[in-house]
Parts: sequence; C-alpha cells; structure tokens
Amino acid sequence: MEQKKHKSSMTERKKDILTGLENLGSRIYEQLDSGYFPSIAMPSRSTENICYDSLLRQFILGDRKVRRSARNIRHLKPFTQLVWAAFFSRELTSQRKTSTLRDVYYSAQAYEMTFTDQQESNNIITDLETVMGLSREDFNIFPEERSAVFGDLTIEYTVPGYEGRTLNLTSHPDGVLIGPALTSAEFAKTTADKVIAIEKGGLFTRFVEENVHNKFNAILVLTAGQAPRATRHFIRRLNRELSLPVYIFTDGDPWGMHIAMVIISGSANAAHLRDLTTPDAKWSGVWASDIVDYKLPTDPLDEVDIKRLYELQKDPRYKEDPLWQKEIKTFMKIKKKAEQEAFSRYGLTYIVDEYLPEKLEETR
Amino acid sequence: MEQKKHKSSMTERKKDILTGLENLGSRIYEQLDSGYFPSIAMPSRSTENICYDSLLRQFILGDRKVRRSARNIRHLKPFTQLVWAAFFSRELTSQRKTSTLRDVYYSAQAYEMTFTDQQESNNIITDLETVMGLSREDFNIFPEERSAVFGDLTIEYTVPGYEGRTLNLTSHPDGVLIGPALTSAEFAKTTADKVIAIEKGGLFTRFVEENVHNKFNAILVLTAGQAPRATRHFIRRLNRELSLPVYIFTDGDPWGMHIAMVIISGSANAAHLRDLTTPDAKWSGVWASDIVDYKLPTDPLDEVDIKRLYELQKDPRYKEDPLWQKEIKTFMKIKKKAEQEAFSRYGLTYIVDEYLPEKLEETR
Repeated sequence: MEQKKHKSSMTERKKDILTGLENLGSRIYEQLDSGYFPSIAMPSRSTENICYDSLLRQFILGDRKVRRSARNIRHLKPFTQLVWAAFFSRELTSQRKTSTLRDVYYSAQAYEMTFTDQQESNNIITDLETVMGLSREDFNIFPEERSAVFGDLTIEYTVPGYEGRTLNLTSHPDGVLIGPALTSAEFAKTTADKVIAIEKGGLFTRFVEENVHNKFNAILVLTAGQAPRATRHFIRRLNRELSLPVYIFTDGDPWGMHIAMVIISGSANAAHLRDLTTPDAKWSGVWASDIVDYKLPTDPLDEVDIKRLYELQKDPRYKEDPLWQKEIKTFMKIKKKAEQEAFSRYGLTYIVDEYLPEKLEETR
Repeated sequence: MEQKKHKSSMTERKKDILTGLENLGSRIYEQLDSGYFPSIAMPSRSTENICYDSLLRQFILGDRKVRRSARNIRHLKPFTQLVWAAFFSRELTSQRKTSTLRDVYYSAQAYEMTFTDQQESNNIITDLETVMGLSREDFNIFPEERSAVFGDLTIEYTVPGYEGRTLNLTSHPDGVLIGPALTSAEFAKTTADKVIAIEKGGLFTRFVEENVHNKFNAILVLTAGQAPRATRHFIRRLNRELSLPVYIFTDGDPWGMHIAMVIISGSANAAHLRDLTTPDAKWSGVWASDIVDYKLPTDPLDEVDIKRLYELQKDPRYKEDPLWQKEIKTFMKIKKKAEQEAFSRYGLTYIVDEYLPEKLEETR
C-alpha cells in the first residue's frame, strides 16, 4: 500500500485553517481598498460540474466557477451571509468552541444577520466549505450524530482544558465517542495493525466482548449506519497517519454496500471536499455471495432495494473494482438480503470465530 | 428529598436476576414432576389493565392475569418460546455476554426455535420482562441507541476483563457512552451535587466546553432525544444511590416536555417495569413561559403538535404537578415552540451564563 505521509499535527492544521479564514477576509479588504466591489469565487456545485476522478477515486468539482459579488444586488445577501459565516467560523475556531448547524442558524440573529430558514444557512456553510476546500468540522461546526471507536490507540487531546492529556481508546468498553475532542486529538501510540469498521452497534459491542481488538490487533470503529463525516475523516487518518489497512463490515444489502462505498470513495455531496475518503479501504462483507456461501437467514429484496441496485450499477464508483459489479449481480440474482446479526443463527460468536477471520484473509 | 437506599451492588443485582431466572425454570420442572401441564402466569398488558398509580407516580399493571399453559394447544408455541427466551437470557447473563433484540431473533434459529418475525420475538421478550418484573437490559439484551454522560463520577466496572477497573467520567470530553459496561458499573465516588439531563447533543457539548460540570457541580447526561431505557435507569440510580437531584432540559415543545415526563414518570409501555422512573426529577425548561419571558426565536406549533398537547392535557401523569397544565395552556395560547439552541440568538454562552442558573434556582 502506498503510504502518503500527511500532516500529523492537528494543532498545525488548526493554525492553517485560521490563516485560511484570515486570508479570505484580507482579500475582501484588499478589494475594497483598491476601489473594487468585493467578490468571492468558488467552484460550482451544480450537478453538471460534478465528475468522478478515477485517480483520486472520488467525485470532484469541475472547472465551472460561480462568483458572488457585492456589485450584483441579487448577490448582496448571500455574499454578506458568506462573509458573516467566515467571520463566525473564525470566532469559533480561534476561541476553540464548537457549534452545530442549528446553532449557527440561531447565532446569526445575535449579529442581526438574517437567514430565511435553516436550509439557507446550511447552504451558506457549504459555500464556505467550497471556498475554503475544508469541511465544516474544520471550522468546529459538528453534527449531532456521534459514532464510536475502541482499541489500542492512545490519543493526545488538543481541546482546551485537556491539552496534552492522553486517553487509551480501550478505556471504556462501551466504546469511545467520536466527537469534537477525539476528532481533533493527535495519535500518540498504537499496537494495532488494522482497522475494522462496523455498521451496527450490537455487533460492535459483540466484537468488544469477544476481544476482537486483541485477537486481531484491530481498532474497531462503529459507523452507526452511514458514517458521519467526522468518522470518515477519522478512518482516513487511521489509514494515512498510521498506515493501517481498513476493513468494512456492513449489512448484506445495497444500503450496507453503500455505507462501505461512502467511506471508501465519498459522496457527490462532498465533491468539494478532500480528506474524507479512504480509497484503499476494503468492503469485506456481508456480500451477496456470503449470503449464499454461509446460508444466512434472509429477507427478500423489496422494490426500493432493487431500484437502488440499478442506480449503484451505473455509478462510476462501483466500476472501480469488479467486486462491486459481481456482488450487485448476485444480489439481483438471489433477490435476497441479510443483516450482520443473521450470523447469530450459528451462535453468537460464529461471526467472530469463523466469518471474520475468513473475510479478513479474503480481502487482505 | 426522601432518600431511599437501594441496593448499590450491581453484582448482587446480577445474582438476583440469575436466581430469578433459575426459579422460573425450577417451577416448570416442579409442575412437570407433579404431573401437571406446566404454565406461567403474568399480569395482562392490555390497555384496560394499565392504570396510573399516584403513589408510585407511574403507570402500573392491574390485577388481571394471563396464563400461558402447555395444556392449551394455542398456548403451546408462545409458552415454549417464553421458556426458550428465559433459557437464552440465562445463557447471556451467566456468560456475561450482551445481545440485541435483533440478535435474539436470529439466535433462536440456532436452537430451532421459530419466530414468525421480529415482532413476535420482541413480544416474547416483553412477556419475559413481565413475568420477571425486570427490564430486558437486566438480561443483557440492549438496544442499539446509546446516550452519554460527563462529569465527576468515578465508576467501577463489573464486566468481564474490566472487573475492578475504574474510570472517571470526565476522562473523555466528548462524553462517555452509556452502554452495557457503564450501565452495570458500580458508583465509586463523586463530588457532584446534581444531575443535569439534556436532550440535544450540540448543547451537551456546549455544556462540557463551558465547564458546566465544574461551575454547577453537575453530572451531565445526554438523553439524545427520548432517553433509552438504560439511560433512564442510570438517571434513577444517580438519584437514588447518590441522592442527587435531577434537572431536565429539553426543547420547548410538547415532544421535549414528554422526554422529561418519561424520565420522571415512565411510559405506559413500561407499566410492567419498575426501576426506570425518577419521580422527583424536575423539568426545568424550555417551558412555554420561557419562550415568552426570554423572547426566544420560535416556530409556529403545527397541527400534530397541538393534537399532542390535547392528549398530554388529559394524561394522568400531567395532572401531578400544576406546572404541566400551566405550561400546556401557555403553549396553546402562544401557539409557538422553541428549540434549546434558540438561546444562541443571545450568543453561544448565554444559555450557560444566564438561563441555566436562573432555571436551576427556579426549579430547585
């Protein structure tokens, strides 16, 4: 596996983010000082400008640009909102406070900055992401959803009040929440040699109880359904900074398959962002062919599952590896799906004792 | 506040649970040995048998009983399923493994015990709860949802591999997950003098960042919407074992109000259970009258909100304290609702600096 050395220091990263926001502000002042109406340009996020980059193995934005200019009366409101969002993000980042999209919407009122509704303020934050090429989490705007991690990794916090304090991620056997503090922590030490990402909470707990982290030298990540962006970034860091291979286990259906895909190759919605994908991660199961091979209890695919399979079949991300097309075809042929818990029909520990080692070997 | 001393030892409790399950099995053997068709009796959970107990301040089941007998051919299947569920719960509890409702459904197949669907197996687990008067969490069957806690409380684990190990619940600033390990831990030490339960994740993080746990000597509990049963049990333990008063902060709408109510007085669905309610806990806000007093940004109540208010108005739990009726009337009058994040219109820390101390004082 190619090993790119990324910046390991989260403190450095935070500094870069602040500098980026300040540069955005300076450019606006410079335009004003030079007697120009200030404007901000960014890549267009319209569907026609989203294309798949097979080198980066993710969706990216094309060359089309949009410009928000204070000269244009129709642009004046979104331009002002965008500048306010940058200002507010700088406040959050420099004061090291975190926030949510909902908080941003209400906070605007404290500055007499009006947004018609939550959707309008969310869009402006996405504009800011596009201008900066950074995720809103980088500006300390976090979603409500949290997933979890467990395994032998010692982290070192960078959040106020905890600077320099460490925590080993086996400290709490229910799993350690992936929130703002964990996301901004440095990786200090690990003995793990792989990452296993798991879709379901029940199975995550099973893996912890059955000592998968020790038996397989693994860091276990609970995605809790579709992985939140902070979790996708965290998985990427484990892969890049610690050179750990990543194996993803989901339900055996088109939705589970796509949970794995979004960790691997990202989504069209995040075409304006990097740092969220892990192209070398493997989808290790539950495959359609596992349903057949392991004779799992199943449910029939319903109409919306089948419609989804046809969509995925045409998706460029699913053309990268012949595995995807093969499994989509098998799903269509057997017309069945199975959950991760279906392995319990062979006893609670079968999935750990038999299935997991076979699949890790198979997708190595 | 009345201080009942409850059994503090979770290990003792687990022993009692095992004994209870074993007694259930012994009674069946005794019936067989005496030449009777074995049967199991339990309180009926039909709506007519659910009544409100104003002494316990929760719903309870009345005197009506149902009996599942091996003599009756229509009972034979549910009777066998119930005995299997008790057997499987004993396996889980004695081997100290946890499981989910989904896992139970699939595990049955390993024993050639058939359930038509997930709903049938869920119902049988509720039957077992009713027979035993214990929650499924007591039998190590946990839901997927997890909430979190943060504050100066040192716990001592009882789960395998962690026996005797301690964790202070300020160890991870993203909050410590309330899963099987935390739920079964002993409370070792605390300096906190109150519990503050919070509906929303964003606000929970804000409270941690603003040092609410120190400034107010509080243990912070994130309910993440409607509190899972393990979390309600955990809040009750904080109240009973540590004699800590509990204050609950939710959104200012009928749904938030009801999140508080279910922590305080439980639900009709759990009328067969004790140990989940905290009758002395206070709903501290966001009240309808707070929306007026603090001039919060609001949304209009929609039809389903108003319908819900009429339902709550007639609910016996809402007749305990005049506060509820008064706030329901105010909601109906102003026809508005507000979220917890609405306080951000006065700046991100207003809720902690101004609102929180006022409300703690007011609902003391």
